[in-house]
Amino acid sequence: MAERKQPLRVAMIGYKFMGKAHSHAYRDLPFYFDTEFEPVLQVLGGRHREAVEDAARKWGWREVETDWRRIMERKDIDIIDIVSPNNTHSDIVMAAAQCGKHIICEKPLAMDVPQAERMLQAVQHAGVKHMICFNYRFVPAVAFVKRLIEQGILGQLYHLRATFLQDWIMDPEFPLVWRLRREVCGSGALGDLMAHSIDLARYLIGEISEVSGMLETFIKKRPSGEMADGLRAQADGAGLGEVDVDDAAIMMARFDNGCLGVFEASRFAKGNRCGNRLEINGSKGSIRWDMEKMNELQLYLEDDPLGIQGFRTIHCTEEIHPYSGRYWPAGHSIGYEHTFINMVNAFVEAYSRNECPTPNFLDGFRCQQVLSAVETSSTEKRWAPVG
Amino acid sequence: MAERKQPLRVAMIGYKFMGKAHSHAYRDLPFYFDTEFEPVLQVLGGRHREAVEDAARKWGWREVETDWRRIMERKDIDIIDIVSPNNTHSDIVMAAAQCGKHIICEKPLAMDVPQAERMLQAVQHAGVKHMICFNYRFVPAVAFVKRLIEQGILGQLYHLRATFLQDWIMDPEFPLVWRLRREVCGSGALGDLMAHSIDLARYLIGEISEVSGMLETFIKKRPSGEMADGLRAQADGAGLGEVDVDDAAIMMARFDNGCLGVFEASRFAKGNRCGNRLEINGSKGSIRWDMEKMNELQLYLEDDPLGIQGFRTIHCTEEIHPYSGRYWPAGHSIGYEHTFINMVNAFVEAYSRNECPTPNFLDGFRCQQVLSAVETSSTEKRWAPVG
Amino acid sequence: MAERKQPLRVAMIGYKFMGKAHSHAYRDLPFYFDTEFEPVLQVLGGRHREAVEDAARKWGWREVETDWRRIMERKDIDIIDIVSPNNTHSDIVMAAAQCGKHIICEKPLAMDVPQAERMLQAVQHAGVKHMICFNYRFVPAVAFVKRLIEQGILGQLYHLRATFLQDWIMDPEFPLVWRLRREVCGSGALGDLMAHSIDLARYLIGEISEVSGMLETFIKKRPSGEMADGLRAQADGAGLGEVDVDDAAIMMARFDNGCLGVFEASRFAKGNRCGNRLEINGSKGSIRWDMEKMNELQLYLEDDPLGIQGFRTIHCTEEIHPYSGRYWPAGHSIGYEHTFINMVNAFVEAYSRNECPTPNFLDGFRCQQVLSAVETSSTEKRWAPVG
Amino acid sequence: MAERKQPLRVAMIGYKFMGKAHSHAYRDLPFYFDTEFEPVLQVLGGRHREAVEDAARKWGWREVETDWRRIMERKDIDIIDIVSPNNTHSDIVMAAAQCGKHIICEKPLAMDVPQAERMLQAVQHAGVKHMICFNYRFVPAVAFVKRLIEQGILGQLYHLRATFLQDWIMDPEFPLVWRLRREVCGSGALGDLMAHSIDLARYLIGEISEVSGMLETFIKKRPSGEMADGLRAQADGAGLGEVDVDDAAIMMARFDNGCLGVFEASRFAKGNRCGNRLEINGSKGSIRWDMEKMNELQLYLEDDPLGIQGFRTIHCTEEIHPYSGRYWPAGHSIGYEHTFINMVNAFVEAYSRNECPTPNFLDGFRCQQVLSAVETSSTEKRWAPVG
Repeated sequence: MAERKQPLRVAMIGYKFMGKAHSHAYRDLPFYFDTEFEPVLQVLGGRHREAVEDAARKWGWREVETDWRRIMERKDIDIIDIVSPNNTHSDIVMAAAQCGKHIICEKPLAMDVPQAERMLQAVQHAGVKHMICFNYRFVPAVAFVKRLIEQGILGQLYHLRATFLQDWIMDPEFPLVWRLRREVCGSGALGDLMAHSIDLARYLIGEISEVSGMLETFIKKRPSGEMADGLRAQADGAGLGEVDVDDAAIMMARFDNGCLGVFEASRFAKGNRCGNRLEINGSKGSIRWDMEKMNELQLYLEDDPLGIQGFRTIHCTEEIHPYSGRYWPAGHSIGYEHTFINMVNAFVEAYSRNECPTPNFLDGFRCQQVLSAVETSSTEKRWAPVG
Repeated sequence: MAERKQPLRVAMIGYKFMGKAHSHAYRDLPFYFDTEFEPVLQVLGGRHREAVEDAARKWGWREVETDWRRIMERKDIDIIDIVSPNNTHSDIVMAAAQCGKHIICEKPLAMDVPQAERMLQAVQHAGVKHMICFNYRFVPAVAFVKRLIEQGILGQLYHLRATFLQDWIMDPEFPLVWRLRREVCGSGALGDLMAHSIDLARYLIGEISEVSGMLETFIKKRPSGEMADGLRAQADGAGLGEVDVDDAAIMMARFDNGCLGVFEASRFAKGNRCGNRLEINGSKGSIRWDMEKMNELQLYLEDDPLGIQGFRTIHCTEEIHPYSGRYWPAGHSIGYEHTFINMVNAFVEAYSRNECPTPNFLDGFRCQQVLSAVETSSTEKRWAPVG
Repeated sequence: MAERKQPLRVAMIGYKFMGKAHSHAYRDLPFYFDTEFEPVLQVLGGRHREAVEDAARKWGWREVETDWRRIMERKDIDIIDIVSPNNTHSDIVMAAAQCGKHIICEKPLAMDVPQAERMLQAVQHAGVKHMICFNYRFVPAVAFVKRLIEQGILGQLYHLRATFLQDWIMDPEFPLVWRLRREVCGSGALGDLMAHSIDLARYLIGEISEVSGMLETFIKKRPSGEMADGLRAQADGAGLGEVDVDDAAIMMARFDNGCLGVFEASRFAKGNRCGNRLEINGSKGSIRWDMEKMNELQLYLEDDPLGIQGFRTIHCTEEIHPYSGRYWPAGHSIGYEHTFINMVNAFVEAYSRNECPTPNFLDGFRCQQVLSAVETSSTEKRWAPVG
Repeated sequence: MAERKQPLRVAMIGYKFMGKAHSHAYRDLPFYFDTEFEPVLQVLGGRHREAVEDAARKWGWREVETDWRRIMERKDIDIIDIVSPNNTHSDIVMAAAQCGKHIICEKPLAMDVPQAERMLQAVQHAGVKHMICFNYRFVPAVAFVKRLIEQGILGQLYHLRATFLQDWIMDPEFPLVWRLRREVCGSGALGDLMAHSIDLARYLIGEISEVSGMLETFIKKRPSGEMADGLRAQADGAGLGEVDVDDAAIMMARFDNGCLGVFEASRFAKGNRCGNRLEINGSKGSIRWDMEKMNELQLYLEDDPLGIQGFRTIHCTEEIHPYSGRYWPAGHSIGYEHTFINMVNAFVEAYSRNECPTPNFLDGFRCQQVLSAVETSSTEKRWAPVG
């Protein structure tokens, strides 16, 4: 009885946290969404055979491959999904584009703006579909805010307040993992966390024209051990290596439309596990949203009668809310993983229509421009234009 | 690469809301849990061929069957999962037990206590595994409360406050669906909603010894049309049929251990979509929990130093919380469907150990005794003993 | 420049917690409200001269008196304010009424229904103004709910959920104070806390027709020492005396208008300091309120458009909210003491119009009838009619 | 019986919002605090006789005076309290200091840094007591945070997030009041709102070393009418005058101790009436506070056991919390006005000890330096040092 749909054969490079999220999304997609194509978990790529085989077994991948370059030549692969560390994105994208593969790539897109630009040009030139994994666009509450803004319900936008706060590296004994080394990840909280906030800002408000940024590394040396892919940072006599990315990044921004933004990303905000939060103030209304309460949206409307004005807490699980009709009745929460299901659905739906999905490498590139402007601004201690 | 596990072949009777939840849980279980057995979605049973085929296609069932009795004789079915209306539970259970099938049954178990008792005896006599689907036990926050209570962290328990509030039938034009007819469902908010609260109370606090109950039907006649399975309630000249179950049920209870309970279930609580809430007060601490914020637990501890006492909001998504280590990093929410994944896992794990899972038909029977005592008490306007 | 208003000379009997609240209200009234009359803190009455003099000095009373009977005869006293223990209310009221004094009396009005009835008759016969101090009616958010209900904004009322939860006597070593002895206070949590909830229910919903009640004393013996006014409970060999009032009281209720109520008052609800909370569900909307967040009202409205329905948090400090225009700009909180200022204002305004204020002894009497019905119901383990 | 204390005779210049708050605090102080001195509301000063007489009558001032200079010479005045517009502060302070009056002055202290410096030197030279009215230091929850930080409970401080958001001038038809004209108020949201946040930051964290600021005026012209004190801004043909202060001010800051701060003040944040909020993240814990829920403090502690970590909501009304013992039992809220009572108490207590209270003109001056650095930074679009 189980429906036979057209297969969309995926090869995924990488198999850590994002590998799990993507794998699940591919598997769960057809249960909830009635798509023409159905992802097939064909090949899982990763350097260490044992680890990648273990992941493949748990998540249901058919094959494994330890050299991602061999995957490119295969005719039976439609999509390359890149969930490996940031410094590997560019090479894989360039090769995949050359081989005519469609590409799904984790954020941040690249190590710097020139690299991002080359990657964007490569996929555009190759004519393949491409997507960048800013998954938080696919939270129903966030997509609903987009709808409210497009309908003018918030009016002219004056303020955005965006944070992405975590606390997982606050212990000085926490080791020098690859996310703390520039050569692997490009930046710290900036590219890992603020990249998400910047994308949400671009999605909801529009383009950023100029920024004033501040970067800080609170703990400058950490115990140095082996990092992913055999890298090892130089250690001093005490076994400490240098943290050369930011622990925290702060940005003031002006948008093209006159809105003002304040952004803050930190891995030193004790008590915040996934403090991805938004507040937007417009001339006619305001919203507040917090990923730790992802199903809830706070909405204030100027047009409410006097005396009963206030932020209402909307459980964005009604049939009318984006994506929610696919899941459970009103009041029944969905979770983090559903952002990836919705995202993969966006890819598959665009693919069915022979269109490029959103967000894509252009969004990845624009985000990279903002990240770069923050770094410039932080170094030069002045405002910096974007792009 | 995808692991080959031992199959556990399921036939499910019914295919509405719970059918979707169970189907998904069977499919998603092996992704998150490393079980010895893996559910196979073998047969989906339901009267209306077209509808059941459609459901089977969407959810991945291999076959369909319109006469559930034919399923019983099949050798290739290990588990019968019953998600059909309440008035069908008994017949299916009796037949399945006779055929030596393991049984998973939605709540409430039966239409009344004698029926529940026969069903319990049947599965015990047959020696099959049986489970009753009180899925809210499997919310990480709820299971964590169980752990806190067992460790004595809340001390002696004095008070339970439990509500299950909805608002989906408040419009007088809402039709006379099967959930509003006693012959099909046995009771209204009582069996549909308060049954969940009663089970959580038994799970967390212990057995209830006596109750004082109150039942009310606010809207006594509704537009009568065709109900599930071709039933049609008698309609008066205006096309209205009688609602013969409760819209709201309220109960005061005494537990064996001296704790006092207040329970309220209603479908007339505007603004509450899934208002399944618990508050427990003990001599050393208190908790508050709300299914609409299912990942959060409010915990108050007497032993906190003076001045910093207060309810703390715990996001029950840490590695240390029940089930949570299977899913995502701390701070990343899970949703309603995960309660079913955890529940199915409990069945499969018990099955692997050749044990009967919890909660099972004994819990279903005990719950039925409380439901029955509420009805007796409500009719006679006095306290009624349980059992 | 300070305005000279007509004096309203008050004598207050009692000087503990409520004495402080009332004293402050009299003093602060003219600052916020433009009343024709201004309270004068003329005499403070209490048995123990030193203590009452100390209180008078702190709170600004002109004189003290140790025998309240002497106050009655004085011509220069307009109002007798009774804040002494419950068992003293009746004698003082009877004497004051006979002497033609206007009376403000703390709740609960009396020790039982017959006493309450005599007190009501006495003030009615004497033609004096009388008020009972159900101060929570005067919380702006609560008075605003009253307005919403009167305007039909919540529609037909189906459910009330009311709690008043505290935790101050949970330690078994906490001594046998007068509030734990029936001879002094009449009842425990029932008259002290649930009386407030009952009054709010009558104010907002209407009269209660019948109840099913449950009373419990969790800790039945406590260290016995000297109580207020030299009383001493009998102590056993271990120095323990009997607690003969309820620690917790629970009530299910039916209102004349068909609404169902659930009430719970307890001094054993760890973590709740002043858990005076209300939830009301009507056919068109719902409210939630919590005294610990007294300025906030949660309001859900059925008529909100689909997708943006949710409980809105209203900070009831806008000009349009009851009383709030007297205090500070929108968003600036008021506190507990303002309920008493508003209450005293209600008395003084009614006095100016030569009317009896609300709530008055009739409300005190009706509340007493409900309290009595709870006790009857609890003893006889059946529903009991009110009145 | 009412206690006779030593009088402290106050003359207050100005009688609008702050005049009401201060007047009430002077009157209410002796009820709650057992001070050696008791404020006497001797003279209320203001230009318009009728208006000032009306205010004096409502608030209980003994006399009025339309020329503040005449007050300075009076021997029977101990304290000059300045609540008039910002552009009048300097002249009054200089005169009062010269006459040896003690001074309480509303914030911001001055129109610019040189003026603030002269005022500071004047009071220091005159040897009078001086206080600047940063009243939010006197919220119990805020003072409790100060205590937690001093005890090291939050550890090393990494982040401060401070907002002060309002929405009262968002309507373009809202007129050009004096708070929108630089000649009267010096700046907009910056000096009116962010000044408070800066003071709280200095109080809790320490001195700010450098800032990057952004100022914006969203609505640049407004209907121009008569402003306070007969001022009238030039209007164009359409009757519109120029808004020459900021509607919104944003600041990134570095503190001397390495903490990073983000500040945002706006009058264009729809739905925020008094959005004075703080978040602080330290190495061992974090706090969150919001003036609209002023009695509540959110506290996260790293040392809580795994699994029960979370922000606890502390109702800062316990005996142990700053100031709270003076008011009501635990759980009973206080309001906005109590910040002023506590502040006046701080003045009177310092006065009794012949000490200068805190915060004083040095704090006003330091705050002015930060405000000035924000303006410089905003103009020059680069980071600016403070002082």
